Amino acid sequence: MINIGVIGYGYWGPNVVRNFHSVDGARVVAICDRDGEARKRAARTWPDAAVCADASEIVTSPSLDAVAVITPVSSHFELARMALRQGKHIFVEKPFTAAVAQAEELIELAERKHLNIMVDHTFLFTGAVRKMKELIDDNVLGKLYYFDSTRVNLGLFQHDINVLWDLAPHDLSIMNHLIPEKPSAVVATGGSHFNGLEDIAYLTIYFPDNMIAHINVNWMSPVKVRTTLIGGQKKMLVWNDLSSDEKIKVYDKGVDVTTKESVYDLLISYRSGEMWAPKISQKEALAREAEYFIECIEKNETPFNDGKAGLAVVHMLQAANQSLEKNKQLGATMKGKLIYV
Amino acid sequence: MINIGVIGYGYWGPNVVRNFHSVDGARVVAICDRDGEARKRAARTWPDAAVCADASEIVTSPSLDAVAVITPVSSHFELARMALRQGKHIFVEKPFTAAVAQAEELIELAERKHLNIMVDHTFLFTGAVRKMKELIDDNVLGKLYYFDSTRVNLGLFQHDINVLWDLAPHDLSIMNHLIPEKPSAVVATGGSHFNGLEDIAYLTIYFPDNMIAHINVNWMSPVKVRTTLIGGQKKMLVWNDLSSDEKIKVYDKGVDVTTKESVYDLLISYRSGEMWAPKISQKEALAREAEYFIECIEKNETPFNDGKAGLAVVHMLQAANQSLEKNKQLGATMKGKLIYV
Amino acid sequence: MINIGVIGYGYWGPNVVRNFHSVDGARVVAICDRDGEARKRAARTWPDAAVCADASEIVTSPSLDAVAVITPVSSHFELARMALRQGKHIFVEKPFTAAVAQAEELIELAERKHLNIMVDHTFLFTGAVRKMKELIDDNVLGKLYYFDSTRVNLGLFQHDINVLWDLAPHDLSIMNHLIPEKPSAVVATGGSHFNGLEDIAYLTIYFPDNMIAHINVNWMSPVKVRTTLIGGQKKMLVWNDLSSDEKIKVYDKGVDVTTKESVYDLLISYRSGEMWAPKISQKEALAREAEYFIECIEKNETPFNDGKAGLAVVHMLQAANQSLEKNKQLGATMKGKLIYV
Amino acid sequence: MINIGVIGYGYWGPNVVRNFHSVDGARVVAICDRDGEARKRAARTWPDAAVCADASEIVTSPSLDAVAVITPVSSHFELARMALRQGKHIFVEKPFTAAVAQAEELIELAERKHLNIMVDHTFLFTGAVRKMKELIDDNVLGKLYYFDSTRVNLGLFQHDINVLWDLAPHDLSIMNHLIPEKPSAVVATGGSHFNGLEDIAYLTIYFPDNMIAHINVNWMSPVKVRTTLIGGQKKMLVWNDLSSDEKIKVYDKGVDVTTKESVYDLLISYRSGEMWAPKISQKEALAREAEYFIECIEKNETPFNDGKAGLAVVHMLQAANQSLEKNKQLGATMKGKLIYV
Repeated sequence: MINIGVIGYGYWGPNVVRNFHSVDGARVVAICDRDGEARKRAARTWPDAAVCADASEIVTSPSLDAVAVITPVSSHFELARMALRQGKHIFVEKPFTAAVAQAEELIELAERKHLNIMVDHTFLFTGAVRKMKELIDDNVLGKLYYFDSTRVNLGLFQHDINVLWDLAPHDLSIMNHLIPEKPSAVVATGGSHFNGLEDIAYLTIYFPDNMIAHINVNWMSPVKVRTTLIGGQKKMLVWNDLSSDEKIKVYDKGVDVTTKESVYDLLISYRSGEMWAPKISQKEALAREAEYFIECIEKNETPFNDGKAGLAVVHMLQAANQSLEKNKQLGATMKGKLIYV
Repeated sequence: MINIGVIGYGYWGPNVVRNFHSVDGARVVAICDRDGEARKRAARTWPDAAVCADASEIVTSPSLDAVAVITPVSSHFELARMALRQGKHIFVEKPFTAAVAQAEELIELAERKHLNIMVDHTFLFTGAVRKMKELIDDNVLGKLYYFDSTRVNLGLFQHDINVLWDLAPHDLSIMNHLIPEKPSAVVATGGSHFNGLEDIAYLTIYFPDNMIAHINVNWMSPVKVRTTLIGGQKKMLVWNDLSSDEKIKVYDKGVDVTTKESVYDLLISYRSGEMWAPKISQKEALAREAEYFIECIEKNETPFNDGKAGLAVVHMLQAANQSLEKNKQLGATMKGKLIYV
Repeated sequence: MINIGVIGYGYWGPNVVRNFHSVDGARVVAICDRDGEARKRAARTWPDAAVCADASEIVTSPSLDAVAVITPVSSHFELARMALRQGKHIFVEKPFTAAVAQAEELIELAERKHLNIMVDHTFLFTGAVRKMKELIDDNVLGKLYYFDSTRVNLGLFQHDINVLWDLAPHDLSIMNHLIPEKPSAVVATGGSHFNGLEDIAYLTIYFPDNMIAHINVNWMSPVKVRTTLIGGQKKMLVWNDLSSDEKIKVYDKGVDVTTKESVYDLLISYRSGEMWAPKISQKEALAREAEYFIECIEKNETPFNDGKAGLAVVHMLQAANQSLEKNKQLGATMKGKLIYV
Repeated sequence: MINIGVIGYGYWGPNVVRNFHSVDGARVVAICDRDGEARKRAARTWPDAAVCADASEIVTSPSLDAVAVITPVSSHFELARMALRQGKHIFVEKPFTAAVAQAEELIELAERKHLNIMVDHTFLFTGAVRKMKELIDDNVLGKLYYFDSTRVNLGLFQHDINVLWDLAPHDLSIMNHLIPEKPSAVVATGGSHFNGLEDIAYLTIYFPDNMIAHINVNWMSPVKVRTTLIGGQKKMLVWNDLSSDEKIKVYDKGVDVTTKESVYDLLISYRSGEMWAPKISQKEALAREAEYFIECIEKNETPFNDGKAGLAVVHMLQAANQSLEKNKQLGATMKGKLIYV
């Protein structure tokens, strides 16, 4: 039996508790939250779990095998480090850490202590992402040309992180999961309108071999959009996560190129065939992820969404944030004079 | 009666001829195209017009008051300059010219000769853009926060210009028409997959006072999207040009900020009220534009889509192209090493 | 404090328990289900409630003020009658009863004992139906012309009632709630493909003054549709219950008639103006209904969804079923010969 | 060369002329319309055709091989009979005739004179209907359960025929084309709100073996809908004619029945698999139909959309109209008293 402690019982924490508690061979035995109301709710729903206000009680408890850190990103590093030092496997909410160096230190520590880190990139466990992974691994799409994701809606302004750190981890973790190549450069732009934190951001990621990715995140959109386009040489797909029945549509559409003697003689023709919406599993992603966390611990295996996967996302976020700052600065200073950046 | 000659009878030329010919007080008396098939079609449909293969016949013809240049952008400057030198008003397909310097020279020439330049930014004459202009001018949206446009579909690869010069002029001319401020900086990214010309491009435009614009253009999308979001302090709107009945939806949604003592005490609350789809005029945009061109000549007035409006778009395209080149170059050289740009 | 007993803890019962338990001044003190698994779930979730297998324990319990009957329709009459005889207010799942005579007897019994009957037409408490009621009562739509509802999807075959009795009570109760006139005639058609119970049915209801209603219910549709059109002289509306944000759209569309000297000179012109999606309350309908049930008991008031409202629906269902049987019979016997019915 | 005369140059006539004129081996040599404006337009567009006001000039002209009757339905019979008597093949707008007896007489006449009748059920020549025909003929859907069509929008009130005769011929001809069985009974309901002609109608058609069809036609809908659902034992499809890219979606959804010892032990389970949108030909339906008309004449073959196909539709329309009259009458007289019909 693997005993788990969960730190953070706000919006996402209750889902984490419920799902980990449902895994055979695991149980949530301790829940921690600074907020009294949250503790009350936890105690009422999970009468068998110990509920506390101080996270150090969790990370030092000798009866726990694993700790889930479901708190704001600024506290991830400290809590995760304490837990690892106490010999606990950790499950950390995304984004993994607030900085690359923090992620690197945690990875090093976990390796030294032979402990598992899993970063909660829940989307990787949805039926939709699993299906896309399968389609790409089976080369159904052919060589990939681009990955273009839009994740916008009104609200959910955060007070500690900007829209990039809030929403883009979803897209970046999915992108990394689906695309085998490593990104080579990041360009980001964005704007803030209220509290100094960017509420709109645009992120371009260059990959080797002309693959390009783009992510559009926005807290200020009147409509909710969750759409990703992936273009390949053989097929293209659209993932609309808001569609109830047809989340993924695979299009037999594309460009066929007939090279003649030189590049100037390229003949480009368009292919437009049928569309196909594969059946997508409806199983709750977090349930699958919780089972996988326990399984990795039991079998002593490293999860694919490990610390390194979390670091790769933090690495891009950090680079993007620097790019955004730089570009925004230039945009702001050059009033009245059009420049290119 | 204003006599018009039209150069270029390919895809768009026939629409230009038909609409100019329908304006009271105007007629198309000469049509030119290098291609024999195009000339045959022109002659069959417009038996009263002179049809020729050599554009210089049009621009030098003493019987013409105005010349419409509906050719690839690379020839705009030469043809327009010849026509202006011959004392003709000109109507030029978008984008106005292939370079800023060309546009400036044409504007200077037209001013000197007291001639009108109209750049064919047809979208400005659609019911949808006119309605958005009205909403913004009447301050229905309040202070503007962002303009975010997506214009993607499969195909229509051009052989002389990239996707930026092909599709973005629509969005840039609409943006300039709707937003009173002048842009201060441009950041562009993109990729090419076939003939060296970018088939995907992303364009961020910074404006003073935290207004930001973004344009996503793509020749490689399996689905057609023509959607623009405009966020304002009071209202937000979505323009979906592919919707037959509800092209513009105005949302009473937004963010209300209660400033307390300092910026750190900002209280952000969300407003979510009704939606409203105003009635949009269905009149053909080009018909309205053609009437306006003739009216401006007759009344000796300068159109709002004049040479300067065309120049502003070319200016942004040129800056964007330079930014794109620079960013793409960096992305390409930095393989295997993540950098921010 | 009003003490409630709930009979039936299958699919809908748990929602009823949860919502009644949340009402101030009320609590669920007893839950009954024949099924052992259901009782186990009830006991685990509601440790303070008495859980039993025999409904007569509930209806005869002296500590209960009201009984909710959330069982298949065939048992409604017996259980409700027992409860009323024991002096309990009743809340009965839709459809009220399996026959008109049963409904009439229960109404008479409740009146005699000064008890309340509420029939669980939950939809009447949704934000969407409340908004439509408001629009119609305020004469925004003008004189009503038609009510046309489609409620189709795959599955949920019932084993005791056909699709008419299963799905149409929603539409019929909404229709009765919105439309002041009383229906005059019912025509129904339909077909069965598996177990003898109709899985497809079409229902036309004639009202005085040319108002007409139509209901399309289907257990065999590959797509889920929940759409109602209501046409009025001044405005028309579409209620799409599957839309997350714009459930109700009000169209300023219609027909304007200029009567000239005789009916043969009628000039019909079309009006097509703006569309408007009012804000809809998101509050859970059953929560509002539960509060209303308690409030009616406390204030000794008759709810609008009382036994008579339930009877009106049963009346139409019974008439429709007879019509359907008759028409289907004729359709079946007339093979190879086209007749009209 | 087959010489064609076209009677009626209003809304649809110009399309008929253009398409017949484009068929190799055919030409339109005469056009007739009572209206002077229509004749002017015809003369301008087709300078080589004779244009006249009197239909008898067309039907008696010795130089014509075939006559297209594109007039209101009330004149079909007279004009078609004259043309057939003069030895001309006929192409008749839908609905074929205003009554069953008229259709029968024309069929008999054409057979006697070895002439072809083609009824203009244009939809049968669309890519969508051809694809559905192919899917059904190849037994992809399996045994058919139902055909459910909705064809509603605002406007286009006719002054001589009701909505049933105006819109339902499309659905009835498609239904007959796709479904091999013959209908056995018709039930229709509907209402009129302006000029005495029904503007809303609902039509149920019973077929042998529990197959059922339903058609919903409405001139008073604020939104345009053109959707047909076809349910089969193996697959179900949705045809949305307003979708630009995915007109037909085939769903691997359905009901699987495991019969146990008796019908009371039926186990019903639901199948929900992938969806598939086949590629649909974009060729103009009327062009294909015009070619087929000429080909049938040249090869002396009977078209599938012949007089008998036209008669079958008129037969159902006539039965439906009688049913509608009867039901409406009952509905109107029974005010205040709910009856079933």
